[in-house]
Amino acid sequence: MKILSIAERTVPIASSLRNARIDFSEITASVVAVVTDQFRDGRRVVGHAFNSFGRYGCGGPLRERFIPRLLRATPAELNDPDSGIVDPQRALDLMLRREKAGAHAERSMAVGTLELALWDIVGKMRGLPLYRVLAERMGEPGIEPARSVRCYVGGGFYREHDDLARLGDEVRGHIDAGYTEVKIKAGGLPLAAELRRIESVLALVGSGSRLALDASCAFGRDEALAFARAIAPYGLRWLEEPCDPADFETYRAVSEAYAGTVAGGENLFSHEEVANFLRYGGFEGRVVLQPDPPLAYGLLELQRIVALARAHGVARENIVPHGGNLMSLHATAGLGLGSAESYPGLFGPFGGFSREVRIENGRATLPESPGIGFEEQPALYRIFHELAASLGV
Amino acid sequence: MKILSIAERTVPIASSLRNARIDFSEITASVVAVVTDQFRDGRRVVGHAFNSFGRYGCGGPLRERFIPRLLRATPAELNDPDSGIVDPQRALDLMLRREKAGAHAERSMAVGTLELALWDIVGKMRGLPLYRVLAERMGEPGIEPARSVRCYVGGGFYREHDDLARLGDEVRGHIDAGYTEVKIKAGGLPLAAELRRIESVLALVGSGSRLALDASCAFGRDEALAFARAIAPYGLRWLEEPCDPADFETYRAVSEAYAGTVAGGENLFSHEEVANFLRYGGFEGRVVLQPDPPLAYGLLELQRIVALARAHGVARENIVPHGGNLMSLHATAGLGLGSAESYPGLFGPFGGFSREVRIENGRATLPESPGIGFEEQPALYRIFHELAASLGV
Repeated sequence: MKILSIAERTVPIASSLRNARIDFSEITASVVAVVTDQFRDGRRVVGHAFNSFGRYGCGGPLRERFIPRLLRATPAELNDPDSGIVDPQRALDLMLRREKAGAHAERSMAVGTLELALWDIVGKMRGLPLYRVLAERMGEPGIEPARSVRCYVGGGFYREHDDLARLGDEVRGHIDAGYTEVKIKAGGLPLAAELRRIESVLALVGSGSRLALDASCAFGRDEALAFARAIAPYGLRWLEEPCDPADFETYRAVSEAYAGTVAGGENLFSHEEVANFLRYGGFEGRVVLQPDPPLAYGLLELQRIVALARAHGVARENIVPHGGNLMSLHATAGLGLGSAESYPGLFGPFGGFSREVRIENGRATLPESPGIGFEEQPALYRIFHELAASLGV
Repeated sequence: MKILSIAERTVPIASSLRNARIDFSEITASVVAVVTDQFRDGRRVVGHAFNSFGRYGCGGPLRERFIPRLLRATPAELNDPDSGIVDPQRALDLMLRREKAGAHAERSMAVGTLELALWDIVGKMRGLPLYRVLAERMGEPGIEPARSVRCYVGGGFYREHDDLARLGDEVRGHIDAGYTEVKIKAGGLPLAAELRRIESVLALVGSGSRLALDASCAFGRDEALAFARAIAPYGLRWLEEPCDPADFETYRAVSEAYAGTVAGGENLFSHEEVANFLRYGGFEGRVVLQPDPPLAYGLLELQRIVALARAHGVARENIVPHGGNLMSLHATAGLGLGSAESYPGLFGPFGGFSREVRIENGRATLPESPGIGFEEQPALYRIFHELAASLGV
């Protein structure tokens, strides 16, 4: 097979969301379409992906380095010699030629987004949903992937008006939709108001183990410790990103002072960065790790990160891919990880899953379409379809 | 004053250089021109900078986020209220609004390049070379900036043919040009060949204290330790980047095993990353720190990095800005740091200094043109001039 052309576009998400540190009013995402010369079921095989959400698009490095390097590669360089299908590992090696050490975030999103699109192609070529391909390549040997995965719903962003009432409406809606576990933003209001938010959600979900908090890196050391001590009695599922992602000393202090579980990882962009987080964070295995595949070089890097985390005593159950979307759902199921995240209705067309996925009793069923299956997520697929159409496909 | 328009361009450097890990054949640089409504000496005040060299350009984030944010800002938001001149600190704060924590490298080069161009404007508005402005704002109180700074010359890249003979020619040329201290690449050849290179240069410079090695992150832990032990008898000035920039455990092991000085910093993109390098690297002050201002958010971040390094016991003498060009020369002189780096004739028009700078007995004199003084670096200024001309200036 041969890659004929690749298109990318930066799409504004136009979100009114706000966490403890920033608003998302300028946020964008990068979408890619990798067009091949192959057909399956009468349709041309095109690989799609986007660079997760919550950060900005990565069109510069896509256009200037990584798309040109993929397009310059020959099929003999890119394809698996046995199957003749593009091999994401070979593509990754090619994309990373002539890259200096370090500065992962400068390229990891562009590379990861393209790598995900190549996995979409692999799934489509083989007629398998991506999670099945991943289970075969990266799963626990001998373990069949489950037919559904545990799935929590993210949200609870701050609203300027009627915050508490609307938070309650939001969580009730999630429970009605089949979710049992929720995550809300934290750290953006005075402590008393934060505790009111927590208690109002606890009254709805019924147990601290069903509520996680995301502090979005808002705290310095003393604030993080004070906040962790204040929420300790609730026995929450986790406290996510209490401080700057590189502030391992505060992670260590919170881990030592807080009986609950700390979480982090969406702002780590390579296995090297994850290694330092685990080495210096003082978790001793008691951490929820949240890598985001398209932000951090893709699924092969996720596989390295999972192996590294396991070696640091982190259970698979406590590896929870970040980014509430189909890509992380496949990663969770395929690699046998703890839980998927869902963002239904948030981050424009990018949040949430496809119409193949049902939420039932806190679990998400898995899509059966070949590849990632964005074709069954109509508002998002419209963007991908237009992108491929711009290449005359 | 008001910023009227900003242009940026990605310029190929078309370098045939090769270090231990990569070649630089695809390398680019980003150049910016910040056009104001002000005139000095009959010329419009335009701020210029580029994002150093050795990594790739950063046109994506420049175009998509940081130039638009600067252009949307009002003079009241951007300017120092006393002088009416643009204030780089206010500009920095504005550029970093709506930026998530972490992922510094994704934006630090775009932000740093614009910040440097704003300092060029400040110098031009005040009729002072940038190093004098920096000495006033960031230097040691009461200390006048020197009229020249210590300056070493970087080079010694690997050549496919006649490597040793051409290395000798290169170093003899540097000595003839007035340099006394040189840095050559290391780690790209078998150890015996590396030692031959080192000894051939030592025979020319006369003392180990006048030769530094740059291993360009080539080694894993065991190789780094073996290499450090092998070069220890030469008493070299420093061993730069023996391993991956995030591999603090190898930095620590080398620091403990090696009696000489380890160097690093060009692949650290924020004060948070420098803090971890110093905290976990095990240097106990015995390190040469090499931050690169336009790669790492600019000169205000450099000031924070210098304060942080001083607090970790690193002498100013051992802070040596990376990037052999006018921007780092001003930083070295203005902040009273240890040494500037020079790359005459390498990295196309971007390496080396302006014609105002003379190299004498291992020191570089300082330019007297207002601002950074790229106007006196003709091959480079041609690029800036064309860029400003594209805006009709």
